[in-house]
Amino acid sequence: KINSERLWNTLHETCEWGAEHRYGENPTDTGMARLTLNDDDARVRRWFATEVQKLGCSLSVDQMGNMFARQSGRLNSAAPMIAMGSHLDTQPRGGRYDGILGVMAALEILRTMKENGFQTNYDVGVVNWTNEEGARFPKSMCSSGVWAGAIPIQKAWDLRDIHNPSVTLRSELERHGYLGDIACSSDPATGYPLGAHFELHIEQGPILPENNRSIGVVRGAQGYRWLTMTVHGKDAHTGTTPFSARQDPLLASSRMIAASHDIAKRHDALASTGIIRVPSNASTNTVSSQVTFTLDIRHPQDSVVHAVQDECLKAFDAIASQDGKGVSFDWTLDTDSPAVKFDDNCVASIQAAADQLVGPEKSMLMTSGAGHDTVYTSKHCPSAMIFVPCRDGVSHHPTEYCSPQDCRSALGTQALLEAVVHYDQF
Amino acid sequence: KINSERLWNTLHETCEWGAEHRYGENPTDTGMARLTLNDDDARVRRWFATEVQKLGCSLSVDQMGNMFARQSGRLNSAAPMIAMGSHLDTQPRGGRYDGILGVMAALEILRTMKENGFQTNYDVGVVNWTNEEGARFPKSMCSSGVWAGAIPIQKAWDLRDIHNPSVTLRSELERHGYLGDIACSSDPATGYPLGAHFELHIEQGPILPENNRSIGVVRGAQGYRWLTMTVHGKDAHTGTTPFSARQDPLLASSRMIAASHDIAKRHDALASTGIIRVPSNASTNTVSSQVTFTLDIRHPQDSVVHAVQDECLKAFDAIASQDGKGVSFDWTLDTDSPAVKFDDNCVASIQAAADQLVGPEKSMLMTSGAGHDTVYTSKHCPSAMIFVPCRDGVSHHPTEYCSPQDCRSALGTQALLEAVVHYDQF
Ligand SMILES: NC(=O)NCCC(=O)O
Ligand SMILES: NC(=O)NCCC(=O)O
Repeated sequence: KINSERLWNTLHETCEWGAEHRYGENPTDTGMARLTLNDDDARVRRWFATEVQKLGCSLSVDQMGNMFARQSGRLNSAAPMIAMGSHLDTQPRGGRYDGILGVMAALEILRTMKENGFQTNYDVGVVNWTNEEGARFPKSMCSSGVWAGAIPIQKAWDLRDIHNPSVTLRSELERHGYLGDIACSSDPATGYPLGAHFELHIEQGPILPENNRSIGVVRGAQGYRWLTMTVHGKDAHTGTTPFSARQDPLLASSRMIAASHDIAKRHDALASTGIIRVPSNASTNTVSSQVTFTLDIRHPQDSVVHAVQDECLKAFDAIASQDGKGVSFDWTLDTDSPAVKFDDNCVASIQAAADQLVGPEKSMLMTSGAGHDTVYTSKHCPSAMIFVPCRDGVSHHPTEYCSPQDCRSALGTQALLEAVVHYDQF
Repeated sequence: KINSERLWNTLHETCEWGAEHRYGENPTDTGMARLTLNDDDARVRRWFATEVQKLGCSLSVDQMGNMFARQSGRLNSAAPMIAMGSHLDTQPRGGRYDGILGVMAALEILRTMKENGFQTNYDVGVVNWTNEEGARFPKSMCSSGVWAGAIPIQKAWDLRDIHNPSVTLRSELERHGYLGDIACSSDPATGYPLGAHFELHIEQGPILPENNRSIGVVRGAQGYRWLTMTVHGKDAHTGTTPFSARQDPLLASSRMIAASHDIAKRHDALASTGIIRVPSNASTNTVSSQVTFTLDIRHPQDSVVHAVQDECLKAFDAIASQDGKGVSFDWTLDTDSPAVKFDDNCVASIQAAADQLVGPEKSMLMTSGAGHDTVYTSKHCPSAMIFVPCRDGVSHHPTEYCSPQDCRSALGTQALLEAVVHYDQF
């Protein structure tokens, strides 16, 4: 049985590195801004390395800075380890649980096993995946993606800090000493293959709380695509230029954002714009020359994601010529994460653990709305996820909260422990 | 007769200070970024001071850094001078004529008078008004507004650099030594009253070129109001948060911008958004917590400006509750510049000069779409403006261009000279 208090304390103690956005008076009433490979991310990495080594784990770091901590199993088998993985990086206005809980829970499980003298049959361990959020270096699930062969490592290394283009992901790996020797790959010859991958994560949505469930047995994840649109117009004076003579990219972008929402809604899909930018030298009385905005399209079926994208681009074409002298636009595809179905045996191990812990009325099968590192690991090893509810489904927000009952006690982490033990025996 | 080549050369030589945004190969094929009281603005101010003093003018600087150069008239009258004024500051992606032409033309006129031994009856002079653009310190026609008593000086002094809030307009006046002693006021006891104010300016719109006219006799300016809207929502994960649970300020802002355009169009007015901002820590997969955007509403009748504003705010109220859990918004009024009618006698002086120079088929009466310092001076002294066409009506853009024929020869500047002489005699 895991030590829920130790889990809780460890998680919040390590949130000292990156705590930001205070919203209440309790010491833990802050969000997090531990962006990938910033100084606080480097601090928590060094702490993690020390802790797993204290437990007798071997630690390997690959060329994307992914950290693999490994505990030997009873059988001394050469089989790849059963991994419990998630990420320690956060959104710029993120919370204390997204990703962090998964790594801390895994560490707590190793501690529990050690203090109970319990050994699995096969090696088990923890993975801290680099740049899951894609907030600072804009590609989410970046390093599990490289590991899975879905993202070329050079492309990932070349990602630029969203606010400081002179800094790359690789230069930050080097600065902190996290550019490891091992290939970032599941290839047994050069990389770090995994026998299975289990991930505990907060749901980040309202489904568990709304259905009054405490464990989500996640059997897959919806597909999503991230586009960046750039709309080109022409600077013009807002007081002297008639509408008919304008090429107004901000007006066009506004119509595009509204249209993408309405199109997604009709498909029961999601389309969202998180970032919009005008040039830094924009002014109140000048029609801007250019606007950039992001578009994030999601649905459990890839065909619907594609249909929404196609319909949006068609609508954008019409919008581009709607006002004045028209605008032009181009776009790039930044992330393409097709829908995935997780491994039946992993899902069954989680289901068995959930049934035993909370019974079928308190757990449910579900599909993840967000991408997770498990989406990529599932392409190269049996994988599945456990969700626990977070308050009001709020995530990517400083007030993100996962109550001790759900995150430290017999539930989430205990379920992860039992699923791993179950799978190890299977 | 003014020296058109000297005017042209002087104008472009002084554009060395602040030249930016090269678009062609000729030396003068650049725009300008001479933002109020940046180092280049300070350089051109020092140059201007030297030049007018060389001509024998007295120079006075008031507490907003407005520069008044004065040439004595024949009668040695104590009457306030007839001023030719405009501004030397530019937009961040501005051109070489907006404002600059008006000051350079006035200087050329003083040079022409001097070299011809011509003296006006009354004192005449040039004013360089500080921060007309309102691009760096966001209040347009800022210092003619203080002079006219329409803007409290403290409010103007406290304006913050739009990108660096630790810098104020006053701190920049002090840094460059342009915080003068004279009150910024038209009060004869403490300030610097003017007998009249004439301003030559590029039209910045398509009306003169479309009507094939070379001189616009400007009898007034349309009204405008600048609002800054702040829309409040809540950070949320774009992958896990259903539309129904969102408070998405960027979606709402997009609908508002589109709605404001459509409302203005119905009223034959203008509504434009030049700036939109999400927090710097926004990310692709997070619904933003807050969005700020500007709204610039214009029409020749104040009642229509107000009607458009009212209708927009009503539409924004409806939009705020349209999607998901709704958003809230608040707004500030940053600039309120009611429509003005210029002085009949000043307009008549310009009309007389235009008739004589180009005849009635090549000039036209018109209303300014943009605000100008003359809008404020007109509240305290007889004022009017001359417009010359700029290529394709393009302004607030690096490629803004006013051909030598229009800006250096018998036309714009000559018309200004003759209007001033006509008014001096009147
Ligand atoms: N869990 C999570 O926030 N992942 C980031 C990728 C995504 O936006 O779904
Ligand atoms: N002429 C000019 O650009 N003035 C600035 C104020 C306005 O936006 O009308």
